[in-house]
Amino acid sequence: MENLVVYAPYLGGVGLVFAGILYLSILRSSTGTERMQEIAEEIHTGAMAFLKREYTILAIFVAVVAGLLAWKLDPQTAGAFLGGAICSVLAGFFGMKAATRANVRTTAAAKEKGQAAALLTAFNGGAVMGIAVASLGLIGVGVLFQMFGSPESAKIINGFAMGASSIALFARVGGGIYTKAADVGADLVGKVEEDIPEDDPRNPGVIADNVGDNVGDVAGMGADIFESYVGSVIATIAIGATVGADTISSMLSDGGGEGVRQLLMSLPLLLAATGLVASFIGIFSMRILKGTNPAGALRYSTFISAGLFLGGAYYLISSTAIANDVFWAVLCGALVGIIIGLITEYYTAGAPIRRIAKASKMGAATNIIDGLAIGLESTLAPVLFICVAIWIANQSAGLYGIGISAVAMLATVGITMSVDAYGPIADNAGGISEMAGLGPDVRKITDSLDSLGNTTAAIGKGFAIGSAALTALALFSAYTQTVGQARGETLLIILTDPRVVMGLFIGGVLPFFVAALTMTSVGRAAQEMVNEIRRQFREIPGLREGKPGVKPDSARCVEISTNSALKEMVLPGMTAVIAPVLVGFGLGAEALGGMLAGATVTGVLLALMMSNAGGAWDNAKKAIESGDIEGEKKGTEAHKASVVGDTVGDPFKDTSGPSMNILIKLMSVVSLVIAPLLI
Amino acid sequence: MENLVVYAPYLGGVGLVFAGILYLSILRSSTGTERMQEIAEEIHTGAMAFLKREYTILAIFVAVVAGLLAWKLDPQTAGAFLGGAICSVLAGFFGMKAATRANVRTTAAAKEKGQAAALLTAFNGGAVMGIAVASLGLIGVGVLFQMFGSPESAKIINGFAMGASSIALFARVGGGIYTKAADVGADLVGKVEEDIPEDDPRNPGVIADNVGDNVGDVAGMGADIFESYVGSVIATIAIGATVGADTISSMLSDGGGEGVRQLLMSLPLLLAATGLVASFIGIFSMRILKGTNPAGALRYSTFISAGLFLGGAYYLISSTAIANDVFWAVLCGALVGIIIGLITEYYTAGAPIRRIAKASKMGAATNIIDGLAIGLESTLAPVLFICVAIWIANQSAGLYGIGISAVAMLATVGITMSVDAYGPIADNAGGISEMAGLGPDVRKITDSLDSLGNTTAAIGKGFAIGSAALTALALFSAYTQTVGQARGETLLIILTDPRVVMGLFIGGVLPFFVAALTMTSVGRAAQEMVNEIRRQFREIPGLREGKPGVKPDSARCVEISTNSALKEMVLPGMTAVIAPVLVGFGLGAEALGGMLAGATVTGVLLALMMSNAGGAWDNAKKAIESGDIEGEKKGTEAHKASVVGDTVGDPFKDTSGPSMNILIKLMSVVSLVIAPLLI
Repeated sequence: MENLVVYAPYLGGVGLVFAGILYLSILRSSTGTERMQEIAEEIHTGAMAFLKREYTILAIFVAVVAGLLAWKLDPQTAGAFLGGAICSVLAGFFGMKAATRANVRTTAAAKEKGQAAALLTAFNGGAVMGIAVASLGLIGVGVLFQMFGSPESAKIINGFAMGASSIALFARVGGGIYTKAADVGADLVGKVEEDIPEDDPRNPGVIADNVGDNVGDVAGMGADIFESYVGSVIATIAIGATVGADTISSMLSDGGGEGVRQLLMSLPLLLAATGLVASFIGIFSMRILKGTNPAGALRYSTFISAGLFLGGAYYLISSTAIANDVFWAVLCGALVGIIIGLITEYYTAGAPIRRIAKASKMGAATNIIDGLAIGLESTLAPVLFICVAIWIANQSAGLYGIGISAVAMLATVGITMSVDAYGPIADNAGGISEMAGLGPDVRKITDSLDSLGNTTAAIGKGFAIGSAALTALALFSAYTQTVGQARGETLLIILTDPRVVMGLFIGGVLPFFVAALTMTSVGRAAQEMVNEIRRQFREIPGLREGKPGVKPDSARCVEISTNSALKEMVLPGMTAVIAPVLVGFGLGAEALGGMLAGATVTGVLLALMMSNAGGAWDNAKKAIESGDIEGEKKGTEAHKASVVGDTVGDPFKDTSGPSMNILIKLMSVVSLVIAPLLI
Repeated sequence: MENLVVYAPYLGGVGLVFAGILYLSILRSSTGTERMQEIAEEIHTGAMAFLKREYTILAIFVAVVAGLLAWKLDPQTAGAFLGGAICSVLAGFFGMKAATRANVRTTAAAKEKGQAAALLTAFNGGAVMGIAVASLGLIGVGVLFQMFGSPESAKIINGFAMGASSIALFARVGGGIYTKAADVGADLVGKVEEDIPEDDPRNPGVIADNVGDNVGDVAGMGADIFESYVGSVIATIAIGATVGADTISSMLSDGGGEGVRQLLMSLPLLLAATGLVASFIGIFSMRILKGTNPAGALRYSTFISAGLFLGGAYYLISSTAIANDVFWAVLCGALVGIIIGLITEYYTAGAPIRRIAKASKMGAATNIIDGLAIGLESTLAPVLFICVAIWIANQSAGLYGIGISAVAMLATVGITMSVDAYGPIADNAGGISEMAGLGPDVRKITDSLDSLGNTTAAIGKGFAIGSAALTALALFSAYTQTVGQARGETLLIILTDPRVVMGLFIGGVLPFFVAALTMTSVGRAAQEMVNEIRRQFREIPGLREGKPGVKPDSARCVEISTNSALKEMVLPGMTAVIAPVLVGFGLGAEALGGMLAGATVTGVLLALMMSNAGGAWDNAKKAIESGDIEGEKKGTEAHKASVVGDTVGDPFKDTSGPSMNILIKLMSVVSLVIAPLLI
């Protein structure tokens, strides 16, 4: 059974072909009117221009780090690092290509064929990203595993995770700043000052806003999940490679020895492969499910994949020499991912949003107080479920179990990422139909798909945080094992050791610091955007009145967002890379262990708090707008108060919150890579 | 030298006599006009009524916990617990008595004698609290040390810290909810809806607001600092009692053995006594300094005490068998307390408030975003300095050094608490002068004293957080030592142990959860207050117009705040007491250790973030009002935006933020008390 692992990269190859076919099928659909094509082209160009400039900057960073790795560690690790970076870039590139082609075709399908066709087009656009993420991960890790999959050389594979993480942090932070600078800027001038609707073609910031959806929610999210995916697999390989012989024998169904270590190292890849096959089937099932209600269709396709994956995983484990107990780790990983998603859905779409909406009646201050309180409160349940997962996974297979449960949570990434990337495509489709002046019938379809996208986005964020937490823990375990192996004695990170306490505090404060940096960046970038949009309304004659033929200078706004994002992503990005190196070499491996633990705890808490508060504010505003709150509607004082909350929530949920996921993973993976040097 | 420790309780007795004399001297000063006396009486009655009802509820809680302690541990610990609770209650009671007598006399002094006399009266009012806190602490711990000061029985003294902590949590949380419900309620209706000035006598909520200053900032703060004071001394005694023999010999100046353990256990009390003497002299020096500028006077009196304390501590240590290196721990504790205070001053009165004020020009949303970003950012520097303190203290004397540095930070509590309690008295004095309709000359003096009080309050909060962090760490060390002693083997809290990781996550999330509870409580209580104030303006004829003879029903508002605070304090209070018990007995001593570490890290971070953001929002609003921001003044759009930030900041800085200090200390001290049972 375990010999099947050699086929993992081939399965990844099949996945890429499948993604290519899907992409071609999207390209063949109708692109609607000339105006629609024109708008879509602007978005596509803006998004691709951003990616190109971002990758150019990152190329320098990647080259420098690869050089350092080759010098201080070995050329193979440097090569793996390059591979991880390239795969992450490719995943982002494929996803963006597909998303910026699928958006206008979704609008056209809504116009020409109705809801079911529009749903399928948007979903397929997302599926290209989903499959590309899983396939590239499987190819990259699979090939490296063939080359360096022995217990002695497996640490080289860690470089791949570091490459993926490095790109991810910059993509997430840069994308987050880009999208919110554009969004906040366009809203503050357009909706508040000029009193024109969202996505109005007169607003110079609207194209940048739509580009931002792709840059942040497609490329950024994709890089985040890609990183978790390969991070969890690689961490579990590393734990398998370094775990003690006694632990190994306790995990075998019928006794055994060192020989089966290889099996433990192969299992994460085999699980990932199983998840990819399950995802294929889930994605196919959308063709049948599309006719039912959209929310149900997305949910059922996810459930189909999850069920198939669990069945496959059980068969896989029971047909190897590994004890069946390990399946408990798989089961709880998969379930806790879903549970955290559902908790997120409650906090961002359930009773709490009515509470915020009602608090808005007393003004903006109470709206903010209640939103923050709900964000703080929303951290409790997910953290307790993470603890349950840690407990069960550890009972079933020790530290290795924690790694396996992270892998299980992420194995069906093909389908979860498809559902997630569907959101911004539907959002874009709505924007295009508004800008192209399509009728209310089309808008109604795209609106319903878009509002569903808000829910899937919230669930996706919860899932991303949960998976980041387990992945970071797995990487942390791998880190301690790797240092222990290098030292020839167990690394004990003891909480009464003052160095560990210092590390814990330093690690704890870093997420706060990075959150501060990214929030400030959004504020600064949005200010620039506001000034530019105000200037255009002032200086371009006929723009405000919507005179035919007068068009805003959207390209200038796209450029401002791009420049700000690229400039502002550097400091938080470098902090994440440099902090572990400084603490590790300055205060030692024990302090670095404390730092990782501290950062993981506060990072997860801030991520949950910020994402959920942001989502709740957003939907509280929508609840008022849709007349769900007695006596309130668009334009009332309560609505204005809710807009304040929504604006505060923007950088919370789309910039600072998601940055936390990658911050904790990147710091963990950098530590894992430098672990052999910390003797 | 070390035999002097038997005199510590007597010195405390002298302190109480001194406080009594100060109190009588306050009572002898003029109380101004009849209207002033009437208002002061209302505030006094409201404050005392709250204390009485609060203590009645707490009596039940204290009795139940004392019963449990007597049953599960021993009657002596239960007795110590009762003693700690009673001393905390007395400290709060004395402080409130003095503060609510000094407030009107400060106004009268401003009216009749000018600024210097008013400053001295307010300061003396605060000094009663400051000396009472230090003296009661010294008496309580000193007496218990005489009774149980041997290494075997010293753990009984821990009960005293738990008693003090239990009262403190309820006092801080209840007081915090009280004061902000009244403040937010009075402001939302008075300033925003009715457009009448702050402290206007027509506003039914104004008396409750002034009562709240005493309840929250005097009694709550006093209980907080009292707890840190006795907590740090007791933790250090516990570390001294349980630290290994090899550590002991490494800390002696000329070799030695087990016999000097008693010396290590005495040193914290001797340092506290030295600090009290230094505080007396600092408080006396105000009589000479009062004529200089008020800010300088408060600062110099603090510096005089700190300098004398450091000199005394050096003499003390060098004349015993303890290595002089221990003085480094004293020095860095004292310095880091001051440094954290100065950092807090920067974030709440320096450049950041201009940034927030300018962001207000774009609206409430950017005001909130920048305030939150500054709050997040403000955590970095204090945490790094705490790390420096940990490092130096540990280098000088291991875990014992961390305890000593906490003691040193708090030893001069007599003067720091005096300066801190001065703030709410000056604030009250301003309120009384406004309500009694005194002229602008008097108001100018009270305003200048009040605005100085805002700065001292911010510094005091930073100091409270820093001392809570070090005290919690000292208690944490004492906890691990005590469990180790009970087990007969070192307690290893290892971060790769899944139970420890679970504890870390649970501990990390608790401050978020308690912050959510307390924010929600303030929102709910403020809503009740708003409804009542609106009702009175609607139903009492002539109130809005200020018809002579028409008075609001202030007592009703006082009652609402009282009831809300007492009801809402129960859940967060019980969480802090029960969580360590559940985790300790459910998951074990290792998990509980992880929980304490997690709670300390996130608790300190949230406390800093919330207190500093709140202070910065408050002063950003004041900067706009005082014309410091170009083109802005009271009533502009930017000012309205800044009021939103100020209102959000109220529960941040006065309820949720300060609750964190006690939460982490109380959980640590409960753990320390139950430690012998966790075998």
